[in-house]
Amino acid sequence: MPFKFGSIEGVAKGDTFPSRKSLGESGVHAPIQAGIWGREKEGACSIVLSGGYENDIDDLDYIKYTGEGGLDSRKKLVRNQEFTRGNRALQLSFEYNLPVRVSRGYQIPNGPTEGYRYDGLYYVSFVERVRVDNGFFICRFHLQSEDSFADLEKKLLKTFKESYSITRRVATSISRIERNVALAEKIKDLYQNRCQVCGVHLKKPSGAISVGAHIRGLGKPHDGPDSIQNMMCLCPNHHAQFDAFTFYIEPNNFEIVGLEGYEGKKIKVSARHKIDRSFLNYHKGLCLDVIT
Amino acid sequence: MPFKFGSIEGVAKGDTFPSRKSLGESGVHAPIQAGIWGREKEGACSIVLSGGYENDIDDLDYIKYTGEGGLDSRKKLVRNQEFTRGNRALQLSFEYNLPVRVSRGYQIPNGPTEGYRYDGLYYVSFVERVRVDNGFFICRFHLQSEDSFADLEKKLLKTFKESYSITRRVATSISRIERNVALAEKIKDLYQNRCQVCGVHLKKPSGAISVGAHIRGLGKPHDGPDSIQNMMCLCPNHHAQFDAFTFYIEPNNFEIVGLEGYEGKKIKVSARHKIDRSFLNYHKGLCLDVIT
Repeated sequence: MPFKFGSIEGVAKGDTFPSRKSLGESGVHAPIQAGIWGREKEGACSIVLSGGYENDIDDLDYIKYTGEGGLDSRKKLVRNQEFTRGNRALQLSFEYNLPVRVSRGYQIPNGPTEGYRYDGLYYVSFVERVRVDNGFFICRFHLQSEDSFADLEKKLLKTFKESYSITRRVATSISRIERNVALAEKIKDLYQNRCQVCGVHLKKPSGAISVGAHIRGLGKPHDGPDSIQNMMCLCPNHHAQFDAFTFYIEPNNFEIVGLEGYEGKKIKVSARHKIDRSFLNYHKGLCLDVIT
Repeated sequence: MPFKFGSIEGVAKGDTFPSRKSLGESGVHAPIQAGIWGREKEGACSIVLSGGYENDIDDLDYIKYTGEGGLDSRKKLVRNQEFTRGNRALQLSFEYNLPVRVSRGYQIPNGPTEGYRYDGLYYVSFVERVRVDNGFFICRFHLQSEDSFADLEKKLLKTFKESYSITRRVATSISRIERNVALAEKIKDLYQNRCQVCGVHLKKPSGAISVGAHIRGLGKPHDGPDSIQNMMCLCPNHHAQFDAFTFYIEPNNFEIVGLEGYEGKKIKVSARHKIDRSFLNYHKGLCLDVIT
């Protein structure tokens, strides 16, 4: 099953699957055991709720979800959970605001009477690492549905208590989410989160903040490619100004043009980073065209 | 009809309406004449495509749309279009990434055979002001559907050429988009786009860049209110660091704690801005809780 974000073609919200295996074959959630389907450099595209953590909350539209790891063979927490593997993947889904498919198992109160039910797309609204009763730390994720509680209740619960005649919402792939998280992470690593324009390094409690910014925009009307040759590592401020066409980078010599305080200075470019000058030229053209 | 963003309860993608009046009564697009339903301080929630501009493009999933104004009684462009009224509203939809409902009229190739058809949610991907053949400027908006071309073709066009037996996708309100654009614009105005932490003023070709940031986050799990007492005007860098719990504002005296270079300094607070200290206290609590 391909690892992809968003809805799965042909799978409607409310569809049920008799087993984890069939849920996997549908493309919704490939791993047979793991609750999180994710990649450390790309994000998590799907989780399954099947109980087991007493502190979890499931309000249907809002979920408080414990990460993976730290359990012994009896499912008892005996080590700290870390932001690695699936937990790091879900953290990335938070940082990049990626949609996470949620499926519920028969084991939990809001689940189907049997098997597993696909319940639509959720977004991670908050990530924390907290100490639980026995003294170990867990990674905790808060997720919010893209649908309202009332709608979920109507579509997922009522229909299952009564009959199968739900109004089917055949899902579609989300065409908007095409950016490659791995590439953004790569360029941020390459510059160690330092802005190529101003060199600022913005700390956060775990690491630092920077943006893997596209020079020629993705999607219509710009149709720039999602490649490292079309990217820069910028701080959020200079990213916002670059995208608003406040300044441009001279393609020939990487000089900054139009940005107060940086006029005539050059951006820092790593020897391991080949920027395609034609993309800088495209962006420059738009800056020169802007009429205010 | 209430002015609201996102899908309309009970209206499915692909639904048709015999007239602009009935489209208005459905809640999709209230104005009977105007192509843009928007407010200058809140954004635009809906547009209708019904032809008339020769430079417009309609690729179904991608739309190049000319703004409003500048026409004489014969629909000839005789003045420049400005980013005011509906055009400013659509520009705000771009800046805040708000969903725009798109309906197509019978007048255009991709429209229904008669009446008006609701075609789902689009997002503004690019805004420009360009000079057209006769020398006047128009405001131009590029919009991209949340659905893929293939899906739209299947759902909207084919079904209408053949029969009415479409797979109905009953729309739901989007519960995620609840933030009040007017409030964000208000606080940005109040501080004239200067960051309350560092005082930076980030220019862009039309105006300046800042963020109307919430102190106690909206939605679950924080449940902060969308009110001016719960907001600050920040630059994108300090907004990102504030949201990542890098630093906090001491509720008693507005001192900055935890931010390199600003330790012990105070944020600027306008006499016309009453920050509710309990929200600062909530955010401070999260900062002190963060475990890395």
